[in-house]
Amino acid sequence: AGGSDVDAISTTMTKEEERLVVNGSKTFISGVREATKFGGGYVTVVKTNPELAHKGLSLCYLPVKDIAGITTNVFKQMGREGISTGAIIIKNVEIPSHYLIGDWNKGFYYAMEGFNCARPLVAAACIGAAGKALESGIEYLKERRVFGSPLAKFEGMQFQVAENYTKLESARLLVYKAAWMLDQMYANNRFSHKEINKAVASAKLIAPTVAFDIIKDVLIWHGAYGYTKEAGLEKGLRGVASYIMGAEGAQNIMKLIIGRELLGKE
Amino acid sequence: AGGSDVDAISTTMTKEEERLVVNGSKTFISGVREATKFGGGYVTVVKTNPELAHKGLSLCYLPVKDIAGITTNVFKQMGREGISTGAIIIKNVEIPSHYLIGDWNKGFYYAMEGFNCARPLVAAACIGAAGKALESGIEYLKERRVFGSPLAKFEGMQFQVAENYTKLESARLLVYKAAWMLDQMYANNRFSHKEINKAVASAKLIAPTVAFDIIKDVLIWHGAYGYTKEAGLEKGLRGVASYIMGAEGAQNIMKLIIGRELLGKE
Amino acid sequence: AGGSDVDAISTTMTKEEERLVVNGSKTFISGVREATKFGGGYVTVVKTNPELAHKGLSLCYLPVKDIAGITTNVFKQMGREGISTGAIIIKNVEIPSHYLIGDWNKGFYYAMEGFNCARPLVAAACIGAAGKALESGIEYLKERRVFGSPLAKFEGMQFQVAENYTKLESARLLVYKAAWMLDQMYANNRFSHKEINKAVASAKLIAPTVAFDIIKDVLIWHGAYGYTKEAGLEKGLRGVASYIMGAEGAQNIMKLIIGRELLGKE
Amino acid sequence: AGGSDVDAISTTMTKEEERLVVNGSKTFISGVREATKFGGGYVTVVKTNPELAHKGLSLCYLPVKDIAGITTNVFKQMGREGISTGAIIIKNVEIPSHYLIGDWNKGFYYAMEGFNCARPLVAAACIGAAGKALESGIEYLKERRVFGSPLAKFEGMQFQVAENYTKLESARLLVYKAAWMLDQMYANNRFSHKEINKAVASAKLIAPTVAFDIIKDVLIWHGAYGYTKEAGLEKGLRGVASYIMGAEGAQNIMKLIIGRELLGKE
Ligand SMILES: Cc1cc2nc3c(=O)[nH]c(=O)nc-3n(C[C@H](O)[C@H](O)[C@H](O)COP(=O)(O)OP(=O)(O)OC[C@H]3O[C@@H](n4cnc5c(N)ncnc54)[C@H](O)[C@@H]3O)c2cc1C
Ligand SMILES: Cc1cc2nc3c(=O)[nH]c(=O)nc-3n(C[C@H](O)[C@H](O)[C@H](O)COP(=O)(O)OP(=O)(O)OC[C@H]3O[C@@H](n4cnc5c(N)ncnc54)[C@H](O)[C@@H]3O)c2cc1C
Ligand SMILES: Cc1cc2nc3c(=O)[nH]c(=O)nc-3n(C[C@H](O)[C@H](O)[C@H](O)COP(=O)(O)OP(=O)(O)OC[C@H]3O[C@@H](n4cnc5c(N)ncnc54)[C@H](O)[C@@H]3O)c2cc1C
Ligand SMILES: Cc1cc2nc3c(=O)[nH]c(=O)nc-3n(C[C@H](O)[C@H](O)[C@H](O)COP(=O)(O)OP(=O)(O)OC[C@H]3O[C@@H](n4cnc5c(N)ncnc54)[C@H](O)[C@@H]3O)c2cc1C
Repeated sequence: AGGSDVDAISTTMTKEEERLVVNGSKTFISGVREATKFGGGYVTVVKTNPELAHKGLSLCYLPVKDIAGITTNVFKQMGREGISTGAIIIKNVEIPSHYLIGDWNKGFYYAMEGFNCARPLVAAACIGAAGKALESGIEYLKERRVFGSPLAKFEGMQFQVAENYTKLESARLLVYKAAWMLDQMYANNRFSHKEINKAVASAKLIAPTVAFDIIKDVLIWHGAYGYTKEAGLEKGLRGVASYIMGAEGAQNIMKLIIGRELLGKE
Repeated sequence: AGGSDVDAISTTMTKEEERLVVNGSKTFISGVREATKFGGGYVTVVKTNPELAHKGLSLCYLPVKDIAGITTNVFKQMGREGISTGAIIIKNVEIPSHYLIGDWNKGFYYAMEGFNCARPLVAAACIGAAGKALESGIEYLKERRVFGSPLAKFEGMQFQVAENYTKLESARLLVYKAAWMLDQMYANNRFSHKEINKAVASAKLIAPTVAFDIIKDVLIWHGAYGYTKEAGLEKGLRGVASYIMGAEGAQNIMKLIIGRELLGKE
Repeated sequence: AGGSDVDAISTTMTKEEERLVVNGSKTFISGVREATKFGGGYVTVVKTNPELAHKGLSLCYLPVKDIAGITTNVFKQMGREGISTGAIIIKNVEIPSHYLIGDWNKGFYYAMEGFNCARPLVAAACIGAAGKALESGIEYLKERRVFGSPLAKFEGMQFQVAENYTKLESARLLVYKAAWMLDQMYANNRFSHKEINKAVASAKLIAPTVAFDIIKDVLIWHGAYGYTKEAGLEKGLRGVASYIMGAEGAQNIMKLIIGRELLGKE
Repeated sequence: AGGSDVDAISTTMTKEEERLVVNGSKTFISGVREATKFGGGYVTVVKTNPELAHKGLSLCYLPVKDIAGITTNVFKQMGREGISTGAIIIKNVEIPSHYLIGDWNKGFYYAMEGFNCARPLVAAACIGAAGKALESGIEYLKERRVFGSPLAKFEGMQFQVAENYTKLESARLLVYKAAWMLDQMYANNRFSHKEINKAVASAKLIAPTVAFDIIKDVLIWHGAYGYTKEAGLEKGLRGVASYIMGAEGAQNIMKLIIGRELLGKE
């Protein structure tokens, strides 16, 4: 599995007359169970000219339901229970040639553009999760009484609420800015790649990290109750964790992108 | 449930001739399923003179297996799968009078002493969990290759390893010091309550927090693989979370203890 | 000196026929040397009905150059060398009655409104200082060579650059948002006090803190050279420190404001 | 100047009959003014076989008072006002051959050993400075009253005191451990180089960083008063800063050392 290292992708695609033939495997793919059950497939990066490294990658559409040569399995995971994650093994899978997406050997660039659009989305999902958690945390602090008054009356708690609120706000603004810049890019041709990359990577770096920290604090505010499944909060922590552990790109990769745009490649 | 606020304990105990009668409930109690199955019971703080606040609390032994008046239930929790947590409802439970532990109305002081002994233990468990995680993280970094070299060769990763190592070491030393001070107190009558309280609360404040952060980072180093149950790491995070969410005393309570010893009550 | 506690202001103002008479003192006042030298004075909060607490405060203009009853002194400070800070002692200073600003006993509200306008300004100054520092830090990292390559080539450094950049961006956006909300409030009557207070306090809480941290990191990147006066960077750290140590309101007060708006007063 | 990169040292030493001749310069050297005034000199690492990189370095004693060929200058610095820092320019300085310290070409190893002894010392100095600051901070919090009570009564402050205290304690224990391990090494031949390096670098990494943060917080607790020179606190911050900005080795170098010992060189 390539993971952070897109060049290291092992799946290949070759042209055979009117068909394309795909071989390889993909791991940690969202929605594998759902796709094999309800239909659908994957926009997949494949090696078409391995000797050209990232300039030899293409993009194709790979259907996975009832396709000869496709086998799948599903992982048990820490969280994200609303959607499965799994692996696809691809053995001599034939697809029609119009399943190639865009131009031959341009897959890397399409994938990077796709990442830039997907990252603000998942960052926004994290903001949403953290915002809801913070809200319910605030409600809880107003209700739960210890030492004769609501937790909300203790200054130590008020400070933690304030700190989490400002963290959420600042992460939210990074996400909004990245999304707005993308809109401006597509609509009005504004902003360079450099600027977009920096803004998107910043949003993806900060939002999941901050969301995880906020949800963790809200859990802590609930004490032992927060530790139960009944409270319905801990699954938020487990879900958001997926975005600091790799989904839509690992956090260190975001730092590398920002660093590269600021310091230059050389 | 009293939670952080020991005075707010609702379980009462009254003397009736040669028996003691207990009424009330306890929630978030470790080992409820195991105790009702294999036998055993709980050292329990009960209100014996409610009007005296914390000076009206006593300690008793409360058996829970096959005892008339005891009902229990078990919670589904975020983690700590090796032991259950649950609630005990106590209705007119009669226990022999020698189940009183120590002196009548001295329960608060025994409980506080008990906490001081238990906290370094759970802090040490957190250090152990984090140490094992860090070790396996280091192994993984040496093996997993991206961009043509092991993750261990990237300076950004080396820095994260170094930072986590120093955090672990410093938390470990706080725990060792608290444990050693307790030994010295019992063996050689050294150290005041003030000093013990500060050292114990510091260990309990820092060790679980640091352990959680280290395990989280190790998970992140594993990328998407760390997110699977198969990797066997994420349950460490969920387990250690119990100690930042209340078990053996909430983190803010540790801060209050340290603050009080440093700033005085008045 | 009142400091964080505006009610505790000690300066009083009384009406005597056509004149107002001011008595008291103000400490930690910016521009004392400049005002006594070049002319000018201070918009000052004074107690006009002490028994009414914050509802008994008024605002007045207090000239300080060549005024009978005004004495001043100037403090040596950690930083902010471009402007002096000092104290004003006010003894039976008579001012014309039109030096009252706005309505009698409305001074507290004017002062709070003034704070809301001033805080984004100083927050913006901090962003400016940090932005300039980060820029010159990046230049330095590209130039300074150790172990055979520029510091900019070391991944550990790249990560620190990325982290500082995202911190700066998120603080900057908080400041822009607060400033924009104020504009909207004055121009279009948008946003409640609650919303403005939260946004302004967030900007004032985060921007100076983040600016201090960024400038500190940039200093560290310069190694021993950063420690010299010649490098011209350390004065930025000392200057920005004034805004985390009280100027335009202390950081904990910002947390109290945000906490109050989120959790309610009761 | 070599700085972090010891191989890059530019000062050379050659044997000329019975004399050693030194040429080059050293920058950011502590005590230059004092040494040129009161006498004394420097234990200096010099290149004796440049082609052998770090295996071609030697150690010598370089006197600086009234020596032909020595010129010095002194830097204006951010802090550390008790001792000067400056540069030494060394032009054909002749020293007797017994000023060579230890064996020819073993200077690198002596220097590293020297660093391992010096680092716990400066780390301890930082702990001392932070401990004193925390103590005086606590005194101030008990005295200064706002909103009708001493700052020490506000829970938000108590938490900050507790957090700073545990940080100080954990840094202190890292320093004690490193110092104890060195004692054990010299007295009882215990501990490998690897273990010593890790412990020393951890102490040097954490103690100055934590000391800086603690002193900063204590300054903040003092509000505007902390910002004045009169309060006598801000010079502690400026002084400790020297140890996070390079003195006795830069912080990133400590991380590299720890990372290397944990992950291996290869
Ligand atoms: C829940 C979930 C759903 C996913 N769904 C999909 C999907 O639908 N489709 C899909 O294609 N992928 C999917 N992924 C995979 C995702 O794209 C990868 O997890 C991600 O690219 C990281 O790759 P990796 O997991 O192999 O980690 P690795 O590349 O092995 O990285 C491991 C760790 O090393 C760090 N690292 C890597 N390189 C460096 C470096 N040079 N310096 C320092 N640190 C470095 C990373 O930050 C990370 O912490 C999913 C992942 C998750 C967790
Ligand atoms: C897994 C697990 C096992 C447990 N096992 C046992 C057991 O065997 N026996 C037993 O007796 N108990 C057990 N407990 C309960 C434990 O003792 C309590 O969780 C703990 O005392 C905290 O109480 P609480 O959960 O009611 O939280 P609360 O007291 O409601 O506190 C909620 C939050 O408010 C914070 N807080 C409280 N007071 C203040 C204040 N003044 N200022 C600021 N913040 C404040 C706390 O830090 C916490 O974050 C267990 C808990 C867990 C999670
Ligand atoms: C460089 C500089 C220039 C200034 N210029 C002016 C000026 O021109 N005009 C003017 O009027 N003022 C000026 N000030 C003063 C400024 O308004 C005050 O510093 C500020 O209001 C804080 O008051 P204080 O310094 O008395 O701190 P205090 O009120 O004594 O506060 C001390 C510390 O306690 C904390 N604290 C206070 N209350 C609480 C609480 N309830 N809970 C927890 N923590 C708390 C604060 O956060 C702070 O850290 C200036 C200050 C500085 C540093
Ligand atoms: C007050 C003071 C007194 C001093 N006294 C003496 C003395 O008496 N004798 C003496 O010999 N020296 C002395 N020094 C110098 C000290 O040894 C150097 O500051 C130190 O070795 C760092 O070198 P540098 O300052 O050249 O920083 P550089 O080596 O230029 O480093 C600059 C920055 O880059 C970072 N960095 C370096 N390499 C890497 C890398 N590979 N990856 C990531 N980051 C990296 C460093 O951490 C640092 O933050 C003193 C310094 C100070 C500040």
